[in-house]
Amino acid sequence: MQPFPTIEAIKAAQERVEPYVHRTPIFQSSALNRIFEAQLYFKCENLQKVGAFKARGAVNAVLSLGQNDLKLETGLTRAVTTHSSGNHAAALAYAACCRGIKAHVVMPDNAPPVKKAAVTGYGAEITYCPSTQQAREDALISLVEQTGAIFIHPYDDQRVICGQATAALELLEQVPDLDTVIAPVGGGGLLSGTALSVSALKPKIEIIGAEPEGADDAYRSLQAGYIIPLENPQTIADGLRTSLGELTFPIIHHYVSDILTVSEKSIIEAMRLIWERMKLVVEPSAAVPLATLLSKRSWIKGTKIGLIISGGNVDLDKLPWL
Amino acid sequence: MQPFPTIEAIKAAQERVEPYVHRTPIFQSSALNRIFEAQLYFKCENLQKVGAFKARGAVNAVLSLGQNDLKLETGLTRAVTTHSSGNHAAALAYAACCRGIKAHVVMPDNAPPVKKAAVTGYGAEITYCPSTQQAREDALISLVEQTGAIFIHPYDDQRVICGQATAALELLEQVPDLDTVIAPVGGGGLLSGTALSVSALKPKIEIIGAEPEGADDAYRSLQAGYIIPLENPQTIADGLRTSLGELTFPIIHHYVSDILTVSEKSIIEAMRLIWERMKLVVEPSAAVPLATLLSKRSWIKGTKIGLIISGGNVDLDKLPWL
Repeated sequence: MQPFPTIEAIKAAQERVEPYVHRTPIFQSSALNRIFEAQLYFKCENLQKVGAFKARGAVNAVLSLGQNDLKLETGLTRAVTTHSSGNHAAALAYAACCRGIKAHVVMPDNAPPVKKAAVTGYGAEITYCPSTQQAREDALISLVEQTGAIFIHPYDDQRVICGQATAALELLEQVPDLDTVIAPVGGGGLLSGTALSVSALKPKIEIIGAEPEGADDAYRSLQAGYIIPLENPQTIADGLRTSLGELTFPIIHHYVSDILTVSEKSIIEAMRLIWERMKLVVEPSAAVPLATLLSKRSWIKGTKIGLIISGGNVDLDKLPWL
Repeated sequence: MQPFPTIEAIKAAQERVEPYVHRTPIFQSSALNRIFEAQLYFKCENLQKVGAFKARGAVNAVLSLGQNDLKLETGLTRAVTTHSSGNHAAALAYAACCRGIKAHVVMPDNAPPVKKAAVTGYGAEITYCPSTQQAREDALISLVEQTGAIFIHPYDDQRVICGQATAALELLEQVPDLDTVIAPVGGGGLLSGTALSVSALKPKIEIIGAEPEGADDAYRSLQAGYIIPLENPQTIADGLRTSLGELTFPIIHHYVSDILTVSEKSIIEAMRLIWERMKLVVEPSAAVPLATLLSKRSWIKGTKIGLIISGGNVDLDKLPWL
C-alpha cells in the first residue's frame, strides 16, 4: 500500500491549481436550515470550472507533470488522455488547455452531444468507441500506444486525489467550525481527498460518505474490509456509478466514519429541494449528501454540516422528477 | 406628477432593508462572456429572500409604515394587504413577518400550490377569489373595508420603487465601471428604481429595459409618450405581464434610453443558457435581459454590462423548453 498523500501535498496542489479553478462559494439556505433543524453549508462545486469539482484533480494532475514527462522521443509534446463520458473528460480537456498541451478523450459513441461539446470546446480530441467498459479500455490502450499520451485516471491517482482534496481545504477555511462533512462517493477521489484534508486539519470533524443504494460498493467494501466492485450499478446519480480504487479505498477505510446509502427517491427529492430552495442547478450525484439527511435527521439537530455539491452538469431535457 | 424619489430616499431604503434582505452576489461566466464578446455581470436576485428582488420593495414599504399608520381605532395593529399571484405576494408576506404584523393576500383560486405555500409559509392569510382582475380588485376592496389593512401596491408606490432601487445601488458598488445596465420591465418597479439609482450615481451608464414582445406596453408607451396598457399580454415571462403605472412610467420615460423587446423563443434560449452555463435556476422573466443580447450583439462588443436577474421562482414541472 502506498503512503497516503500528505497535507503538504494537498497544500501544494492548492497553490498549483489556484490560478485555474474557482474558489467556489458556500451557499446557505434559511429555508433548508429550518427544514433540517441544522446549519447546512453547501460547497458549490457546481459553480466550478467545467461545472464540477473534477477540474481540481485534473488540473493538479496535468500541472504536476514535469517537462521531461511531456517530452516524446520525436521531440513533440506528449498529450494526456483518459476514458470517460462524464465530468472527468471535460475536466481533463480543460486541464490540458490550461497547460497548453493536447488531450485525447475516449468516449462511448452514444455519449450525449452536450458532453461531447464540453470536451471539444476545450480543444480536446475525441476517440469514439462502443459503450462497453472493455471497448473503452482497449481504445485507450491503443491510443496510448499510438500517441504516447499519458493516461490520467479519473480518481485512482494521488495527484487527482490531492486536487479534489482542495475543495474541502477551502470549505474548512470558509467555515472553520463544522461538526460534520458529507461528500458523495463514486470512485472515491472526492471523498478520499476530503477525508485527507479534514482529518489533517480538523480531526474532530466527522467525515461521512454519501452513496446511492443502487451503487453501494463503498458501503459494502467498508463493511467487508476489502474492495467489492459493483458489476451493474443502477442509479440516476451517474457520477457515482464507479467503484472504489486501490488508492481511494484505504484512505476512506481509514478516515471515513460512515457511508450512508440513499434511495433513488430521496436523491430526486434532495435534488429538487436544492433547485427550488437554493436556485442552484445541481446534478443528481451532487444531491446525494443532502439525501442522506432526509431520513436520519435526529443526529444532525443543531449541528453544523458541510455538504459538497459535486457538480451541476445535468441534461435539462431529462429531469428525473418529470 | 409627483417628484421622483431622490437618491437619499433610496439610500435610506437600503439602510432600512439591509437587515432583512441579502446583498446578492454578482455572477460571471467566462463561457457567456466568450459567446457574447462582452463582460456580463449578473446581479443574482434569484438568490434574494423569497427568490426575487420583490423582497426589497415590500420590506421597504412595510418597514416605512409609522407606528401611527399601523394603529386601528380598536387598538389592534393594522395588517398589510395586496392582490398578487406572483412574487409580490410572497414578498409582502415575508415583509409583514419581518415587521411582526399580519398580511392578507388576495390570490386567484387557481394559483399554483407552490405560490400559495410560499405565502402561507410566512404566516400570511390568503383570501381566494376568481381569477379575473375585477374579482381580485373587488376582493381586495372588501378585505380593506373589513380589516382596515393597508394596501401595498406591487410597483406603483414610491416606497416599493425605492426598495427595488437598492438592487442597482448594490450592483454599482459591486461593479463600479459598467457601461450599460439592463433590467426587465413589467409594471416598472424594478426598472424605474434601477434608473433612479444609476442616473443619480453613474449618469454615464446607459439604462435599458428588457421586455417580451408579447407584453410590450413599456415599448409602446415610451414611443407614444403616454401609458398604453395591454389588455391581453401573452408571454411565458409571467412576472412581466403587468403594465407600467402612473409613478413608474414618468421615471422610465425620463431616464431609460431604450426598451428592447424579445421573442418568446429568445427568452427560452436565454433562460436555458443561464441554467446550463451558470448553473442558476432563473424564472423566464429573469432571462429577458440576456435575451435582448442574443439578436443585437454588435453594440455590446467589449463593453461591461450589468444584467439584473430578477427572480428564480419557476415551476420545475413545467419548464418552457420541454
